[in-house]
Amino acid sequence: MGRTSDRKETLIQSAIELIGTRSYNAVGVQELCEHAGVKKGSFYHFFPSKRDLTLEALDLIWKNFKEETLEPVFNSDASAPEKFETLLRKSYEYQSSRKDCVGCMTGCGFGNLALELSTQDEEIRKKIEEIFCEWTKYLEGVIMQAVDEGVLSSETDPASTSQAIVAYIEGVFLLATTFNDPCIINRLGEGVLQLCISKKKAVDACSAG
Amino acid sequence: MGRTSDRKETLIQSAIELIGTRSYNAVGVQELCEHAGVKKGSFYHFFPSKRDLTLEALDLIWKNFKEETLEPVFNSDASAPEKFETLLRKSYEYQSSRKDCVGCMTGCGFGNLALELSTQDEEIRKKIEEIFCEWTKYLEGVIMQAVDEGVLSSETDPASTSQAIVAYIEGVFLLATTFNDPCIINRLGEGVLQLCISKKKAVDACSAG
Repeated sequence: MGRTSDRKETLIQSAIELIGTRSYNAVGVQELCEHAGVKKGSFYHFFPSKRDLTLEALDLIWKNFKEETLEPVFNSDASAPEKFETLLRKSYEYQSSRKDCVGCMTGCGFGNLALELSTQDEEIRKKIEEIFCEWTKYLEGVIMQAVDEGVLSSETDPASTSQAIVAYIEGVFLLATTFNDPCIINRLGEGVLQLCISKKKAVDACSAG
Repeated sequence: MGRTSDRKETLIQSAIELIGTRSYNAVGVQELCEHAGVKKGSFYHFFPSKRDLTLEALDLIWKNFKEETLEPVFNSDASAPEKFETLLRKSYEYQSSRKDCVGCMTGCGFGNLALELSTQDEEIRKKIEEIFCEWTKYLEGVIMQAVDEGVLSSETDPASTSQAIVAYIEGVFLLATTFNDPCIINRLGEGVLQLCISKKKAVDACSAG
């Protein structure tokens, strides 16, 4: 048995893997402990309940998604449309590798838990609401960049546009998960740009007309 | 105890109510029987398992959604954009009434079960995939109407556009469920039209330019 911090970390990783591949209610504390190689007494030393473990797992998934995907993509020198394209390509690649690894597309951990638990667990619902709000804020930056670049009309509302994009991305993941087909992310991904650029297209077409 | 057909119907209604408000794995056969006022022996007379009950419940939800919402809205004399607006208004009204009734937004039964079970239950995943395909077909009709009406460009691909709209509607429901706020359906609903009409807007703007 490793150090205390290792055991806690292993439990969080087990939650990400088991709950992320199946669902919250399909995975019990006993199975999480067995997967992590940690005794049940240790589990309750670190976490009062499966919910508390899941809240920490959600924090870690969000931290990793920010650090490994959102920040490198959104802090690059690319144009706003290129940033969205890269985000979608990385999402497709990740979901394809998950399917190769576990045999099926596992989708978005936030969306999955949100739909399973929002009516049942207020703390988890609020945690995912906060994550979606923070994600929306990241996208607002790219929307404002697109306005600066002249890709989007200056009348664009960054808040509602970025929330619409988060909704669309979550919906695309939902369909891709239901069809067990990551290619749907590629096929429907261009709709993200359509949600953004329709006003600008109209303006451009008008100027060119 | 009522007639055999009544007891079967009551079990399906209990599944729609209990699983629809919580989740599949949070509701057991015992609770479904108690809610329906049906003995466990009767349950297994009608359904080999909870999965089989759920498959019939999904069929009934889809039948009701078609007959009570999609067909009246889509077979009306309204224009294509009006049909989408009516669909979204009805969705908002239904979700608001559910929130008033059970204290929280319950979202889309298909999307909820898809994300909870797609990696775990191939039969349920396939059933929801079929339902999404059929729903997409309904929307294709409205997309083609929009092309005929000149609201959409003749270059529009009805299949991919209607799948994008199903994805967006599911994503909007996912966010509204996560935020426990049916108003998100109203606020983001106009994005549906944006996914459709951007090309036409460009064409119109060009003609007017």
